[in-house]
Amino acid sequence: MSSGPNSPSNIHIALDVMGGDAGPDVMLQGLRQARETGFDAEVTLHGRQADIEAALEAANITDRVPAIAPAEDVVTMEDKPTDALRRRRGSSMWQAIAQVKEGNAKAVVSSGNTGALMAMSVLQLRKIEGIDRPAIGALWPTVSSRCVVLDVGANVEVSANQLVQFAIMGEAYARALFGHDRPSVGLLNVGAEELKGHGLIQTAAKILREADPEMAFIGFVEGNDISKGVADVVVTDGFSGNIALKTAEGTARMVGGWVKDTLTANLRAKMGAALMMGALKDLKQKMNPSRANGAPLLGVNGLVIKSHGGADADGVAAALMTALALAKHPYLEEIQRTVAKVNRRVESGAVADLDGHDLAKAAQ
Amino acid sequence: MSSGPNSPSNIHIALDVMGGDAGPDVMLQGLRQARETGFDAEVTLHGRQADIEAALEAANITDRVPAIAPAEDVVTMEDKPTDALRRRRGSSMWQAIAQVKEGNAKAVVSSGNTGALMAMSVLQLRKIEGIDRPAIGALWPTVSSRCVVLDVGANVEVSANQLVQFAIMGEAYARALFGHDRPSVGLLNVGAEELKGHGLIQTAAKILREADPEMAFIGFVEGNDISKGVADVVVTDGFSGNIALKTAEGTARMVGGWVKDTLTANLRAKMGAALMMGALKDLKQKMNPSRANGAPLLGVNGLVIKSHGGADADGVAAALMTALALAKHPYLEEIQRTVAKVNRRVESGAVADLDGHDLAKAAQ
Repeated sequence: MSSGPNSPSNIHIALDVMGGDAGPDVMLQGLRQARETGFDAEVTLHGRQADIEAALEAANITDRVPAIAPAEDVVTMEDKPTDALRRRRGSSMWQAIAQVKEGNAKAVVSSGNTGALMAMSVLQLRKIEGIDRPAIGALWPTVSSRCVVLDVGANVEVSANQLVQFAIMGEAYARALFGHDRPSVGLLNVGAEELKGHGLIQTAAKILREADPEMAFIGFVEGNDISKGVADVVVTDGFSGNIALKTAEGTARMVGGWVKDTLTANLRAKMGAALMMGALKDLKQKMNPSRANGAPLLGVNGLVIKSHGGADADGVAAALMTALALAKHPYLEEIQRTVAKVNRRVESGAVADLDGHDLAKAAQ
Repeated sequence: MSSGPNSPSNIHIALDVMGGDAGPDVMLQGLRQARETGFDAEVTLHGRQADIEAALEAANITDRVPAIAPAEDVVTMEDKPTDALRRRRGSSMWQAIAQVKEGNAKAVVSSGNTGALMAMSVLQLRKIEGIDRPAIGALWPTVSSRCVVLDVGANVEVSANQLVQFAIMGEAYARALFGHDRPSVGLLNVGAEELKGHGLIQTAAKILREADPEMAFIGFVEGNDISKGVADVVVTDGFSGNIALKTAEGTARMVGGWVKDTLTANLRAKMGAALMMGALKDLKQKMNPSRANGAPLLGVNGLVIKSHGGADADGVAAALMTALALAKHPYLEEIQRTVAKVNRRVESGAVADLDGHDLAKAAQ
């Protein structure tokens, strides 16, 4: 398909088809599906030649057949990041990232080992200047739309400065993906009486308010605010973020199971379910986790999109669409610019602590 | 009703009927409902005499009318704990707790200000020896049953020792409530590759394994394991726990909203919903947050049950049933005994760190 809803983009994406739980077949079915909904980037497939050829045939991709960049080695899910860096430079993952480094591709998409993908990306592409450590942002369904939550697992311990950096990266990501000019940003906190969270959250909030007045920072939000859609971007450390994300997934799965039980509880219920078939299809679509697949490694100086290891074709298609949306947007430059601006303001002493403390020091 | 499924318990419970968002009416409707499902404790009602008399009449409680302990002052939701301690000693909350202190009641139940309830309870009843700070445990629905998650908000920053204490308190609570001899206990952690959580979680796991081999400690669990029912007790710090709890509530509400939309999407769907009425009633019951209402202030040397400020009559009834279950069980003594045992073993040096570090020091 050469004509999607968008005009052909001339954007090139490197697709690592190995490494996910399901393998090249699912990756290429995902590509086929993405094309059917307007994905118009050029793609190069990285992986074992024979596997790719078989998968292309299985997915029945005969039009605009992507180029194959053969790589015999594969990063496994068991590889430790440090080992992958040492021993997997002949892998499809390494070579796909190299395409971005060399300017041949604008983005890389992989369903492989997250730790290895992060380590290889940071080594080859480096971090954005002013970013201490990259973060992983998750797309989160809300009652009305979607939001971004970060970090969801890359950084279990963070400084106030890192929370500020997460806010800046999440804002740029949300702007690229949702098309809002000024996405709202909230800091995740607890809401019980007399508890106002860690000191570092207070410091991060202060810096965001004072040093980045251009950001639509709405202050603290609570766990139940995420799915309410109170903020376009919810910022937290990787420990709480990972727990929140997995807890939400578990809860949705449990409630989904209860709904299924309800629909099949007895003959009358089954008849009722048959009557509401159309509406149930919408519900199933809303609850499909594939919709939210595709998380950029934020803070890496290049576009690297992590697709879930167990993603299905729908999920891979969503990750490819995210890669394309980000590739069309100057979001890396925005992060660079905003981080530099905020750091300048904090270091110049323009941001004073309420108690006169050195905020630049407290934030480290 | 003097005959429930249990024999009359001769247990006395002090019920603070003021302070919740809904007031004495809901508290007494809750009492009425609890009695209908076997709640056989004696109850004294603490609060404004006129309000209580009106609420007794509204709830139509004419049999076994509880005694009234008049208290004209009320702790408000806005009171800071420190202010409440200073200025609210004439309040229903303070006086209800005093009943436990003086041995006139076995437990107190209140829907009032959590911070004030905690502060007043610690001041009057003291903490259990060996417990650094009390915690709040939440009942959490799982696919097959329920589990306890703690802490969910009292302690945003914790030591490894405190996580160990939470585990011990949660285990005793689950034993009293679920009737398992050896409830399984898990430590909440992140599951991404190469991330094994904070050092203090590692230390806590080590202590639990080595110093409390009697506990059915199953190691680390992830956010999605909570609703799967992987552990009877899930231990975490109050920051992550509060976020997990509220995120789960938000997710359940969002999915519930989607289900409602599905059932009313169009005429066919509405007809279908009418057919499955019975099954939907079960679903509604499963999703009713009132089922999980009633959280003991764990670590306080006396039974104090916090009911949600916005609890309905169902919720108040659940909190009263929890109070009665705990009052019938030697769970305070169990916590005392286990904490003393574990502390003894850690301090004797019987628990060695893998690297030979002083675990007793690392845990503080």
